[in-house]
Amino acid sequence: MAARGPTPRTLRLTLQYDGTGLVGWQRQKQGVSVQGLLEAALGRLAGRPVAVAGAGRTDAGVHALGQVAHLDTAVHLPPATLERRLNDALPADINVLSAELTDRRFHARRSAVARSYLYQIARRRTAFGKPFVWWIREPLDIARMREAAEVFAGLHDFRSFTDADPEEKSTRVLIERVQIVERGDLILVRLEGSHFLWKMARRLVGALAAAGRGEIGPADIARWLEVSSGEPARLTAPAAGLFLERVYYPGDERLGEPVPVVNL
Amino acid sequence: MAARGPTPRTLRLTLQYDGTGLVGWQRQKQGVSVQGLLEAALGRLAGRPVAVAGAGRTDAGVHALGQVAHLDTAVHLPPATLERRLNDALPADINVLSAELTDRRFHARRSAVARSYLYQIARRRTAFGKPFVWWIREPLDIARMREAAEVFAGLHDFRSFTDADPEEKSTRVLIERVQIVERGDLILVRLEGSHFLWKMARRLVGALAAAGRGEIGPADIARWLEVSSGEPARLTAPAAGLFLERVYYPGDERLGEPVPVVNL
Repeated sequence: MAARGPTPRTLRLTLQYDGTGLVGWQRQKQGVSVQGLLEAALGRLAGRPVAVAGAGRTDAGVHALGQVAHLDTAVHLPPATLERRLNDALPADINVLSAELTDRRFHARRSAVARSYLYQIARRRTAFGKPFVWWIREPLDIARMREAAEVFAGLHDFRSFTDADPEEKSTRVLIERVQIVERGDLILVRLEGSHFLWKMARRLVGALAAAGRGEIGPADIARWLEVSSGEPARLTAPAAGLFLERVYYPGDERLGEPVPVVNL
Repeated sequence: MAARGPTPRTLRLTLQYDGTGLVGWQRQKQGVSVQGLLEAALGRLAGRPVAVAGAGRTDAGVHALGQVAHLDTAVHLPPATLERRLNDALPADINVLSAELTDRRFHARRSAVARSYLYQIARRRTAFGKPFVWWIREPLDIARMREAAEVFAGLHDFRSFTDADPEEKSTRVLIERVQIVERGDLILVRLEGSHFLWKMARRLVGALAAAGRGEIGPADIARWLEVSSGEPARLTAPAAGLFLERVYYPGDERLGEPVPVVNL
């Protein structure tokens, strides 16, 4: 019988990263990406090229608390050892929270049933939170923000809230819930939905902030969901405040109350 | 009668800063200091040189949640306006929390009756907290840390816990309390005392961590408080985890439970 190589297996990684100095999740021609760093580190450990697929593409400056990725690998290491070696090989702004063997049919993006994004708005200047918050000087009316948020819930066509993306077939998205809570001088906005289109999370938050400032109302949002508009693009919230918080797979329990990353 | 200039007044500033990119509080020949940045910004606002005195000198990489400084100024601006203009002139890693007119006899350092330092130890790697925590891989026994902490309480000679400093006349310090609390994967150590000698806070925390790892015990600490020793210097905790949390003046209420700066 011919010698067989090690059985290929699927490894699921959960990771957090500070997106400040990164061009985002996806490998780019220029700049440092999470995918690029992970593939380079795993390639060195495996001694051959390794391809990693992520659950969601995060843009430059966007962070992750629980990005999920998978790889088919023949690396001969127990997952806990791989996790440690991987962290030792990665820069400090990327942190592998867990590495687990999983069902070979598992696909980080295609198996996901929902995503949660967290956005941090700061009501005051802060020396520590700069890369992780959007500081809004004007007073924000939380009740108006919540009123506006309700309009987003449900299955809508979000084409006003995204830019053309050749990888997306449809702009219809199910938004399950938009939560807005206050924690000290922070306003946390949590968006839960089936998936998020390119720039969509930042444009939803931008529209909510405009509602909080009293510049727009629920009727404007309702109209933008009916008829294509360039308005939401002009309201896009900065990348710094945004975190891919959690990717949900079948059977996963939902997170409890949102917790701020920094305390103000 | 001759024209008189504006009445001089004392302004009290409370500020926070991320010490990562700074050489510390005090102006140095090389590098960017908090004092230097404040004096430059205030000088531009006042149109003449302004000298600022701080309550405590923090070293390079050490942060502040509530540093206090005072200046005698003739700047013709209401404190709230000055605070806003000052923040607009300062880089993002320094933030003036308040500017208030105060008694002319107020001196940020000499009027202070106690100081509180907060230290963040992380039990796990983190993508966000790197500049704000000391990540300790080995398991830490909290009960042993608390046992060791009790030895520090009281009036002791802390010469083993500092380096020679020409500005200090005595190495006797009153430590009022050492609090150790767990918040998720963080261990927060709060040190409260009359004042802190150069490097003292980091050496106290270093000794507590060594106790938590089981390398030293309360008897070692008691000995170092009796007889001069070079051991604490070898245990010095990194600057990154340390925050000057609060400076207390007569009549100030003490802070409640310590709150982490980042959530792990």
